[in-house]
Amino acid sequence: MSRLAPDSRADYPHQHALPTRWNDNDIYGHVNNAVYYALFDTVVNRWLIDTDLLNLGESDTIGLVVETGCHYFAPLAFPHAVTAGLRVGHVGTSSVRYEIGLFGENDTTAARGHFVHVYVNAEARRPVPIPDRMRRALQTLMRGGGYS
Amino acid sequence: MSRLAPDSRADYPHQHALPTRWNDNDIYGHVNNAVYYALFDTVVNRWLIDTDLLNLGESDTIGLVVETGCHYFAPLAFPHAVTAGLRVGHVGTSSVRYEIGLFGENDTTAARGHFVHVYVNAEARRPVPIPDRMRRALQTLMRGGGYS
Amino acid sequence: MSRLAPDSRADYPHQHALPTRWNDNDIYGHVNNAVYYALFDTVVNRWLIDTDLLNLGESDTIGLVVETGCHYFAPLAFPHAVTAGLRVGHVGTSSVRYEIGLFGENDTTAARGHFVHVYVNAEARRPVPIPDRMRRALQTLMRGGGYS
Amino acid sequence: MSRLAPDSRADYPHQHALPTRWNDNDIYGHVNNAVYYALFDTVVNRWLIDTDLLNLGESDTIGLVVETGCHYFAPLAFPHAVTAGLRVGHVGTSSVRYEIGLFGENDTTAARGHFVHVYVNAEARRPVPIPDRMRRALQTLMRGGGYS
Repeated sequence: MSRLAPDSRADYPHQHALPTRWNDNDIYGHVNNAVYYALFDTVVNRWLIDTDLLNLGESDTIGLVVETGCHYFAPLAFPHAVTAGLRVGHVGTSSVRYEIGLFGENDTTAARGHFVHVYVNAEARRPVPIPDRMRRALQTLMRGGGYS
Repeated sequence: MSRLAPDSRADYPHQHALPTRWNDNDIYGHVNNAVYYALFDTVVNRWLIDTDLLNLGESDTIGLVVETGCHYFAPLAFPHAVTAGLRVGHVGTSSVRYEIGLFGENDTTAARGHFVHVYVNAEARRPVPIPDRMRRALQTLMRGGGYS
Repeated sequence: MSRLAPDSRADYPHQHALPTRWNDNDIYGHVNNAVYYALFDTVVNRWLIDTDLLNLGESDTIGLVVETGCHYFAPLAFPHAVTAGLRVGHVGTSSVRYEIGLFGENDTTAARGHFVHVYVNAEARRPVPIPDRMRRALQTLMRGGGYS
Repeated sequence: MSRLAPDSRADYPHQHALPTRWNDNDIYGHVNNAVYYALFDTVVNRWLIDTDLLNLGESDTIGLVVETGCHYFAPLAFPHAVTAGLRVGHVGTSSVRYEIGLFGENDTTAARGHFVHVYVNAEARRPVPIPDRMRRALQTLMRGGGYS
């Protein structure tokens, strides 16, 4: 089992504030591991909406999630603020690998996650090629190396 | 069945921003009714923490929720911003009625909720009188009339 | 502030098992107050689906939640089993008041909640009269007295 | 990017029923990807509690989640039933890799996930060796090959 190392804010081209909520904390007093994925979903979809690439309820293309994962390095907890960093690790014909870093007070990631979307037709749920406009927007979130 | 009317931002002494998350929306594309209570919990507990009245994991007094309720006037939805207004409707010997308004774009409440806490000893879970310091802080959140 | 009293399993014509989940518990080790509403939503919608009154994604009528509330009498906690009792307190022209009791180990309610749905056209979101078939099904869930 | 293939019920020594809830579904009408992790958490912790290896609020050893992941093969949706299969992929000195398969109607996994716990002292959060009794119980959940 290889083990990812934490990285830093500068490794993520896009930053997004994600305040914690009371019931993000579980019985151990820290944000529950499943909540991290709700945060990933929020930062990815929010970027898509703000970049005018997703129009909820009207887009005929939707991003199906086919793979997710997360490495946890340090706890996060309500009421502390969390910042998400977003980058794109890979763009394929129909798929995108989003990579998200969550930061508490420190400059190193409290957690690093990823999210693979396959873009499909909303009706037939068959993969569709990523349009050029979206591909260009995704490339602004790529860094040199991807998820190493 | 009496029916509450919406009220406005000026009816709440304390305001708190509560960004929505992707999975706050249910299948109908609006914030699910149960999520409103997670927002109420967040604004109330955050105010208690910021006012130095609750120290998670260290307070020997905790607020048990004995009653909650909400009237929904207009939908809220991710990715739109939500602001919560908080006021105190009633302070008893051991109990507090918090009243929360949630606002979307408009100045009238999209929803009005309440939350009754009974303060108890964390060990024995028996009601304890609200300390004077907390009572004074709560009074700064009261308005003339309470929840009408 | 009037205060509801607990009632018993026999007060609810329909029963539904609702297993708890790990992150239903909050930092105090009990099911969080907002989770109760997710359970209410589940028992009501599940009954509607099982009774063939709601067909997700195909019904042109949907139930908008306009009011919810809950009184909490005793804690519930993961990993313990919860049973929901469901009854109908009132049926109006376009609205229904569902009343839910949640039970842990005892025969008295750990919590009593309600849920007012207004049935609307999915497109225009205007109230529509409750169809006769649905009205007859709802009446099988009424008891003598309603939510007293 | 290597891609896991689905496996079948017979690949999991332990099975657990996990009913879906109304708000597990997101706007696309399927169980949201983050909810899968809440199900994983439930099946793992429930097995630990039922096997008398975890006593909430009393254990001085807790399982910190250091890594999670999931591959999604087919959608799940409320109101349909879900069954989880649980196996143990690896037991180290202080860590355990739990592997979970989620099944809808079919015998092949709708999703395959994993969950790495490191067992730590609840106070100091330092790794502690897995006790012999727990190690023996975990071995009953191992299959020949691990997560291939």
